Amino acid sequence: MTAFSRPSGRAPDQLREIGIERGHTVHAEGSVLVSFGSTRVLCTASVENRVPAFLRGKGEGWVTAEYGMLPRATHTRSDREAARGKQGGRTLEIQRLIGRSLRACVDRKLLGERTITLDCDVLQADGGTRTAAITGAYVALMDAVRWLSARREITRDPVFGAVAAVSVGIWRGVPVLDLDYAEDSDCDTDMNVVMNDGGGFIELQGTAEGHAFRRDELDALTALAETGIATLIAKQREALAQ
Amino acid sequence: MTAFSRPSGRAPDQLREIGIERGHTVHAEGSVLVSFGSTRVLCTASVENRVPAFLRGKGEGWVTAEYGMLPRATHTRSDREAARGKQGGRTLEIQRLIGRSLRACVDRKLLGERTITLDCDVLQADGGTRTAAITGAYVALMDAVRWLSARREITRDPVFGAVAAVSVGIWRGVPVLDLDYAEDSDCDTDMNVVMNDGGGFIELQGTAEGHAFRRDELDALTALAETGIATLIAKQREALAQ
Amino acid sequence: MTAFSRPSGRAPDQLREIGIERGHTVHAEGSVLVSFGSTRVLCTASVENRVPAFLRGKGEGWVTAEYGMLPRATHTRSDREAARGKQGGRTLEIQRLIGRSLRACVDRKLLGERTITLDCDVLQADGGTRTAAITGAYVALMDAVRWLSARREITRDPVFGAVAAVSVGIWRGVPVLDLDYAEDSDCDTDMNVVMNDGGGFIELQGTAEGHAFRRDELDALTALAETGIATLIAKQREALAQ
Amino acid sequence: MTAFSRPSGRAPDQLREIGIERGHTVHAEGSVLVSFGSTRVLCTASVENRVPAFLRGKGEGWVTAEYGMLPRATHTRSDREAARGKQGGRTLEIQRLIGRSLRACVDRKLLGERTITLDCDVLQADGGTRTAAITGAYVALMDAVRWLSARREITRDPVFGAVAAVSVGIWRGVPVLDLDYAEDSDCDTDMNVVMNDGGGFIELQGTAEGHAFRRDELDALTALAETGIATLIAKQREALAQ
Amino acid sequence: MTAFSRPSGRAPDQLREIGIERGHTVHAEGSVLVSFGSTRVLCTASVENRVPAFLRGKGEGWVTAEYGMLPRATHTRSDREAARGKQGGRTLEIQRLIGRSLRACVDRKLLGERTITLDCDVLQADGGTRTAAITGAYVALMDAVRWLSARREITRDPVFGAVAAVSVGIWRGVPVLDLDYAEDSDCDTDMNVVMNDGGGFIELQGTAEGHAFRRDELDALTALAETGIATLIAKQREALAQ
Amino acid sequence: MTAFSRPSGRAPDQLREIGIERGHTVHAEGSVLVSFGSTRVLCTASVENRVPAFLRGKGEGWVTAEYGMLPRATHTRSDREAARGKQGGRTLEIQRLIGRSLRACVDRKLLGERTITLDCDVLQADGGTRTAAITGAYVALMDAVRWLSARREITRDPVFGAVAAVSVGIWRGVPVLDLDYAEDSDCDTDMNVVMNDGGGFIELQGTAEGHAFRRDELDALTALAETGIATLIAKQREALAQ
Repeated sequence: MTAFSRPSGRAPDQLREIGIERGHTVHAEGSVLVSFGSTRVLCTASVENRVPAFLRGKGEGWVTAEYGMLPRATHTRSDREAARGKQGGRTLEIQRLIGRSLRACVDRKLLGERTITLDCDVLQADGGTRTAAITGAYVALMDAVRWLSARREITRDPVFGAVAAVSVGIWRGVPVLDLDYAEDSDCDTDMNVVMNDGGGFIELQGTAEGHAFRRDELDALTALAETGIATLIAKQREALAQ
Repeated sequence: MTAFSRPSGRAPDQLREIGIERGHTVHAEGSVLVSFGSTRVLCTASVENRVPAFLRGKGEGWVTAEYGMLPRATHTRSDREAARGKQGGRTLEIQRLIGRSLRACVDRKLLGERTITLDCDVLQADGGTRTAAITGAYVALMDAVRWLSARREITRDPVFGAVAAVSVGIWRGVPVLDLDYAEDSDCDTDMNVVMNDGGGFIELQGTAEGHAFRRDELDALTALAETGIATLIAKQREALAQ
Repeated sequence: MTAFSRPSGRAPDQLREIGIERGHTVHAEGSVLVSFGSTRVLCTASVENRVPAFLRGKGEGWVTAEYGMLPRATHTRSDREAARGKQGGRTLEIQRLIGRSLRACVDRKLLGERTITLDCDVLQADGGTRTAAITGAYVALMDAVRWLSARREITRDPVFGAVAAVSVGIWRGVPVLDLDYAEDSDCDTDMNVVMNDGGGFIELQGTAEGHAFRRDELDALTALAETGIATLIAKQREALAQ
Repeated sequence: MTAFSRPSGRAPDQLREIGIERGHTVHAEGSVLVSFGSTRVLCTASVENRVPAFLRGKGEGWVTAEYGMLPRATHTRSDREAARGKQGGRTLEIQRLIGRSLRACVDRKLLGERTITLDCDVLQADGGTRTAAITGAYVALMDAVRWLSARREITRDPVFGAVAAVSVGIWRGVPVLDLDYAEDSDCDTDMNVVMNDGGGFIELQGTAEGHAFRRDELDALTALAETGIATLIAKQREALAQ
Repeated sequence: MTAFSRPSGRAPDQLREIGIERGHTVHAEGSVLVSFGSTRVLCTASVENRVPAFLRGKGEGWVTAEYGMLPRATHTRSDREAARGKQGGRTLEIQRLIGRSLRACVDRKLLGERTITLDCDVLQADGGTRTAAITGAYVALMDAVRWLSARREITRDPVFGAVAAVSVGIWRGVPVLDLDYAEDSDCDTDMNVVMNDGGGFIELQGTAEGHAFRRDELDALTALAETGIATLIAKQREALAQ
Repeated sequence: MTAFSRPSGRAPDQLREIGIERGHTVHAEGSVLVSFGSTRVLCTASVENRVPAFLRGKGEGWVTAEYGMLPRATHTRSDREAARGKQGGRTLEIQRLIGRSLRACVDRKLLGERTITLDCDVLQADGGTRTAAITGAYVALMDAVRWLSARREITRDPVFGAVAAVSVGIWRGVPVLDLDYAEDSDCDTDMNVVMNDGGGFIELQGTAEGHAFRRDELDALTALAETGIATLIAKQREALAQ
């Protein structure tokens, strides 16, 4: 009998090597280079003293995200969205997901009338760019909030809890954690899970690529995600403690 | 003690009144007006003898979807996307979801080199437009496939199983089925579930609006969705039998 | 000698079956499904308490229109304008025509600083969509004005007279009223006529498709249009009286 | 009693000074500077050996038009359409009208598989730019056809008859010919008429600005247009004879 | 030995015939038709009593430029930028250059909170359109400033010095002044030079097309440009003195 | 007397610290992170076996560039061009410059019918991003060419010579080399110079920001640029030798 073997040689419940490097660039209030194996995403947090029109005068802040991929972050070059003149559906979908996920841990009244924009730009892609982006953006957001605190612009911490994300999927019949590109492009079911440090689900997006998944598979996948996210949140804490 | 009461007076596990009217317009190969209560979506299926560039010469077909909402389908008028010059992120996200969901029940080799486009246009919105669209588009797709069979353009049925969708959510602490607008705009967790007639999950998209949801809530929601989708698939069969 | 026969079997001066169904959708202040035979257009009137920039502070209101066609309203599917990223020339031309025609029966001072937008969306096309749209939009406009009166937001009726429209053309040498698609795509001259209930012309747009038309033909066509519009205005009154 | 007096002092049935200058620029196959008083439009005809996709392989040619206005052709500067990123509805409407009008005098089979594009760019505007454009574009088209004949690319003349256009309107109660800007911005009814040299109507577009016009007014306006167009066609012939 | 001969027969240091015609159109505050041989550019200056957002409330004015080329200004027809939906890179580059060049001779404090827009539209192109545009736009700018003075809207002249531009290049090994299209499309080095009447350089843009140029070539080219610009500035003065 | 002192403390003719790191990302055929002090640009070279339409069938290749800046590469966040729906004039101008500069050292016949696209994305900006981009893109181009050679897709080296770029300017009256942001935003004259390893000029773009520059200043600036570029070319060689 042949043993099951992931392309990377990882155990089914093993994350890739995780890197969270704060202060990667100098201008942004928060700037984090996050890596999930070969996937590398630069997440910056920018603070601006204004809010979108629909929030003006309400005494609340806003947290939003934009996502991009450098044209040659991938195996073959893809068109530059700025040159094509619009962001594609996948891009919009991902940046909406990142924004919702981060807003889930922010008390926008405490933030006050300011906007924090999380720019997540993929420098190198190897699967899981959106989950890496959420995980890194949380740390960049924390740095931006600390920057506001240090300048005494806010007095109470508007961030409650922590947020991280990971992908899980069924690859060759086995539930696996943190899919890389080789697995992602060849799996039956693919699920992105965003959770907080209290073990609650913030977003759950599962797609059957090959065959519809059953409830026991759903249970196995969410259980895998839970363990992965616990590790990611520990890594975030570690990075923020430095 | 006050009894729990949904705005519509429905029981927690009760769908709205479901309507599936085939042949609603005359030109399309499939044309279905689907209603989930006050939500009304016109789903047409159009057959074309060409495939997108990435499939040319591969002997496979394509199934895709486009989604739109009439400007005054909603309580207040929203901008016409054609006039604004682009489809918004929500629209793109929904039409990608509809397309993926329907492709999950089609053998594209058996379809041959043709494209079936499912246009889902919301005439009146009261929550759950995307789940109504998927449920109706499946019936329109079936009619288009029957049209192809009747003309002997295909000899084997490319559609396997059935696909339907419903929303579930936690409203005032109680898991409820098939949210209408009043519930949707005021719920803690919102989940769209797409399943097939074998009880498998095709898409699962859950979002914590107010508080992160726990695993037991996830279980309760998916169980509710299962019962709702079983009913919807029965309604589809009934409509297709007429 | 073979008798002249229109594809539909109608007499040259015979309109198609006309339907004007008020209250077709629930959210809009006016909502009318108008049908000229198989042509079906949903006309909604939306009231908003603001005016375009060029009218601000002038104490006048605005009436405008937008026109769209569902991708599969026609025999073969046409591209969705929202997906193409712009409205085509034909669309812009038609919505400008609808807007001008309706403004011709509105005293914008009496309307006050509000905008009424008439969205005319073609659900099914069989020729004459713009004339059906104008005829139906008038009724939707009236309903919106009644809604304003009922809420005592206006005290004097800003609409004077009635407006309706019909197409006329020379098909196989004979002037005919209310062209359907079969006639429209095969006629020598095509004219859209908008008139009021006083018998005055509001818009007249004639195009020679095959041969240039002579003055006697122009006279015959405008005479036909007059009789058709008289009937349409009677139908509008009937619908508004219910 | 005060005599009626047009702002320009012209008689009601008097055209402005008409100029048709051929060969105004050097590169185009036809290049005409047409002036109706202070309105000046540069009309160029460009011949290309290809046709739009919908005509490929049919052995027919195409005639089309594009219209533009320099930003400061008018009293106050208007935005440059290229900078705004799209052509407005008025522009599209006018260029569609010019194209239809010119195609009405061309046998596209005799033209062969080539496209003649008529670019009509308004250098200075004082009312009547679209009618000047049509009148000038006809002469540019003729020059392009002569250029094709001279090179023996065509052997039979694909242009039959002549086409010219003029505006008419009711200004202060009086039907007047060839409205300038002062009249156009202050008239009750405005009509653009395109006719051929056989006295047939090619396009008729009348709009009631202030009050709906009656049939006798329509008759007076078309009669005025006829005399004006007869003069314009004589001017075209004169220019082409030089 | 064959004598060196430019396509036009000009001496290496000879400008083409220069024309500067003021008052070419009637509406603009400044309107100049400039010609460098067969290159003809209409430059209009429009005064508006507002400034871009980044200057509001600063007591300063703005000078900016837009550049366009009629579709058939060139040997073969190029697409209309308004129809393509965007200005190309070359267009943006040129209009930015024109704007910077003209701002170099304006004291924006003295101009006050108004904007002067220089529209430079190429009616006919034969090389050197950007240098002709700068040279003509300066004269249009002066006319607009005189218009402001005449209306006593400004009391001190905000324009200091004069600005003109010319192209130089190395054609068949010889430095030549004011390249026409035949030279421009076949030269080794092409340089656009903008200078003021004090002999200072405002912009210098040199591009090696065929071989990299040496410092002695750079010296020869700038020397040629100096003589050409001296002549152009004299022509500007002459035109402004009329 | 106060000594002259640059914000960075550098000598007038001193470059910032230059870094050229090859193999920065894994997918591209060439991938270089170039740094000029705090300015950091990721330059990737992508090889594709196709050429733009205007080169098809000519047996020649193409070299082109795209430039982008991450939204928070700068002091304050700038809009994402993909979200705004178009590339700005500055972006287009820079990417055209990079493309021209690199094409100046490539024999496109020897490259064969393939395209090399140089994507230059600014991760962190501190002045001189375009000159850093050109300098880094040359090294990425060389790596892509070596990759082609290693796969024996080309047999003769299509790159001749080397290309590098630097900015020079007059800051507080003194000509200085390699301006950082503090100098760039406060200098009188700013010049970008692209040269090859033979000491020839490929591009020279000088702009007078404050006062027009004289010929002796031009000489001083180009001399400074020469020394800077000699050093940069040495750095490129060193990097390529590793």
